[in-house]
Amino acid sequence: MHQGFTLWFTGLSGAGKSTLTTLLHEEFKRRGYKVEVLDGDVVRTNLSKGLSFSKDDRDVNVRRIGFVCDLLSRNGVIAISAAISPYESVRQECRALVESHGTAFVEVYARCSLDELVRRDVKGLYKKALAGEIEHFTGVSDPYEEPANPDVLVESDKETPETSVHRILAHLEERGLIDRA
Amino acid sequence: MHQGFTLWFTGLSGAGKSTLTTLLHEEFKRRGYKVEVLDGDVVRTNLSKGLSFSKDDRDVNVRRIGFVCDLLSRNGVIAISAAISPYESVRQECRALVESHGTAFVEVYARCSLDELVRRDVKGLYKKALAGEIEHFTGVSDPYEEPANPDVLVESDKETPETSVHRILAHLEERGLIDRA
Repeated sequence: MHQGFTLWFTGLSGAGKSTLTTLLHEEFKRRGYKVEVLDGDVVRTNLSKGLSFSKDDRDVNVRRIGFVCDLLSRNGVIAISAAISPYESVRQECRALVESHGTAFVEVYARCSLDELVRRDVKGLYKKALAGEIEHFTGVSDPYEEPANPDVLVESDKETPETSVHRILAHLEERGLIDRA
Repeated sequence: MHQGFTLWFTGLSGAGKSTLTTLLHEEFKRRGYKVEVLDGDVVRTNLSKGLSFSKDDRDVNVRRIGFVCDLLSRNGVIAISAAISPYESVRQECRALVESHGTAFVEVYARCSLDELVRRDVKGLYKKALAGEIEHFTGVSDPYEEPANPDVLVESDKETPETSVHRILAHLEERGLIDRA
C-alpha cells in the first residue's frame, strides 16, 4: 500500500499539462501505483457542467478539483490535476486542504512563453483569442497568476516532455513520495 | 488492501440515512477500512453549490456523487452516498458507472412511511412542506421513486438503527465485500 499525494499542474493552455499528465499516468500505472487524472475535460463534464469561465466560476471549478484530489490522495491514490488553475489564492486553498490531511501537495508549473504558445497554437485558440473572439481566455483575455513557489518547474519551450517527466519523477523520488525506479 | 465498493443509500429526508451512515462510517473505520461519506451537505458545499432542487439539477447533483463514488471505490475505498437520490433512472446510471469498473454498487433503501416522517419531523421540514412553504420537497411536493430492487431494505419505523446496521453489514459480509467481524 503506497501513500497518496496530489500532483497539481498549473499552466496556460498548450503548455504541456496534458502531455505530461498522460506520460506520468502511464508511468505510475507501470510502477503499480493507483492513479487518477482530473483533467479539464473530465472535470467540466462530470463536476462542473454549467459553470462559465468567469473568475467566480473558475474558482468554484478549481476548488471542486481540489476537493476530489483531497478525497483520493488521502486514501492512497496519486491524484493528478491537469486544469489551468490560473489563480494563486485558490491553488493555495487546495494545497491547504490536501495538506490538512497530512497528504503531500506537489505543484508543478508547466511554463511556456506566450510567444511560443501562439506560434504552436495546436488548437487555433490563441489566434481566436488574440482576435478578441474568445472571452476569458487565460493568458490573453483573462489573467494567469504564476505560482510564487512551485515545487517543480517544467518548461516545454526548453525541454522535451521526457525530460520534464524525468524531473518530476526525480522530485517525487527525492521526497520519498514514490519509490526509486 | 481491501476492495472498494459503493454503498448507495436512497430514501426520504428523515428516513435514517445519516444516522446509519454515521454508524457504518465508525464501524468501517474500527475494522480498518478506508471509507468516505458523501452526504447531502458535503456535496452541496463542495460539488454542487449553486444547483437548485429542480429535477435537472437534482440529477446533476446525484450524477456528481456517483462520479466521485466511482473514483473512490475503484481505488479501494468504501464510498458511502447518503443523498436522497430520488430518481430510479439516475440511480441506475450511477450503478452502471460503478459496475463498469468491476466495483460493487450496493443500494440500500432506507424506507419509512410518510406518516411516521411527518410525525417525527425532527427539523420541522415536513410541516413546512405540507403547508406549501417548500418547493421541491421530496415525498411531499416532489416525487420519490422507490427502488425497484434494492440490495438491502432497512425500515427505521420498524427496527432500531443498530438492527439496520447489522443487516447491512451482514449483507456485505455475505457478498464477501468485507471480512466477517
